[in-house]
Amino acid sequence: MHPPTTPFEPTPPVSIALKSDIENLKHAIEQAKLGASEGGVSIGGAVVDKDGNVLGVGRNKRVQEKSAILHGETDCLNNIGRLHASKYVGATMYTTLSPCTMCSGAVVLFGISRVVMGENSTFVGGEDFLKSRGVEVVNLDLDECKQLKKNFIDKYPEIWNEDIGEE
Amino acid sequence: MHPPTTPFEPTPPVSIALKSDIENLKHAIEQAKLGASEGGVSIGGAVVDKDGNVLGVGRNKRVQEKSAILHGETDCLNNIGRLHASKYVGATMYTTLSPCTMCSGAVVLFGISRVVMGENSTFVGGEDFLKSRGVEVVNLDLDECKQLKKNFIDKYPEIWNEDIGEE
Ligand SMILES: [Ca+2]
Ligand SMILES: [Ca+2]
Ligand SMILES: [Zn+2]
Ligand SMILES: [Zn+2]
Repeated sequence: MHPPTTPFEPTPPVSIALKSDIENLKHAIEQAKLGASEGGVSIGGAVVDKDGNVLGVGRNKRVQEKSAILHGETDCLNNIGRLHASKYVGATMYTTLSPCTMCSGAVVLFGISRVVMGENSTFVGGEDFLKSRGVEVVNLDLDECKQLKKNFIDKYPEIWNEDIGEE
Repeated sequence: MHPPTTPFEPTPPVSIALKSDIENLKHAIEQAKLGASEGGVSIGGAVVDKDGNVLGVGRNKRVQEKSAILHGETDCLNNIGRLHASKYVGATMYTTLSPCTMCSGAVVLFGISRVVMGENSTFVGGEDFLKSRGVEVVNLDLDECKQLKKNFIDKYPEIWNEDIGEE
C-alpha cells in the first residue's frame, strides 16, 4: 500500500546511499580542493548519469570570476552546457555541501533524480524543497567535506556569508 | 489579528502592483526584445532596489552563450556581480515570465523581497515556493509579454522545451 499522492506533492523517495556514491563524490571534492587552491570558496559539484558517466564537474566561482550565481552545482550545469532533458533522468548531482535554494531549484528544473551531498552540518539549503518535488536526497556526512568548508570559513568568513546571502 | 506563523512558513505578504512596476518591467521587456533580436530565448529580467535604482538587467543566454543556467533572472544577478546582501532588501526582481524553480530559488537566496512578472499564461515556475518563503509575487498579466514569448515558441518550439527542462 502506498500513501495517496498528488502530482504536486509526490511521496519523497527513500534515500539510500549507493556504493558508488562515495567514489562519485570524489569528483566534487576534487573540484572543491581546486577552488580552494585558487583562493575561491571551497565547494564543488559533479553530475553523474544513470549509467555512471560523469556528465560534468564544477566549483564555486564567486572569487575567481566575481560571479554570484556560479556555485559548485550551477557551474557544473553550465559546464555541461545544453543537453537533452532525457540525459538527466536518473542522474545524480554530487555536491560537497547541502545545495542552496538556487541550486536545489536548478536540480528540479533540470529533472535530476538524486542529490548526494558531502555534509550539511552548518548549512541546510533546499533539501525540503527537493524532497517535496520527488528528488532523492542523501547526506554522506563526511568529515573531509566539513574540514574543507571550515578551512575556508576560518580564513574568509565575510566571503562565506556573502555566498550564502547573509549580511 | 494575524494568523499564526512559523519561521519556515511565513504568511505570504499581500501582493500589490505599484505604479512604478509597469515602468520598471520595461527594462526586462527591453532585454527580452534584445534577446529575440539575437535569435535567443525572448525572456528578460531586471532588479530594481528599494529606492528605485536599477541594479542590473539580463536576458536568457541559452542560444547566445550556449548556457543552460543563464535565464533572464540569473543573467541579471550575474551581471550585477558580487553585492552586499543588504542591497537586495526591499528590491524587486522584474521578469517577463513566471520565474522557474532555479530563478525562484535564486531570488530567495539573494533575499530579494518582491517578484513582478509580465505573465504566467502557459508556464508557472516557483511562485508557490516564493510565496512560502515570504516573497511578494505580482503578475501584471501583460499581452506584450505573452506575444514576445509566443513569437519565440512558434519559431523554435524545441529550444523552448529545452529551456524549461521538458523533452
Ligand atoms: Ca538573507
Ligand atoms: Ca522534466
Ligand atoms: Zn547553490
Ligand atoms: Zn529561470
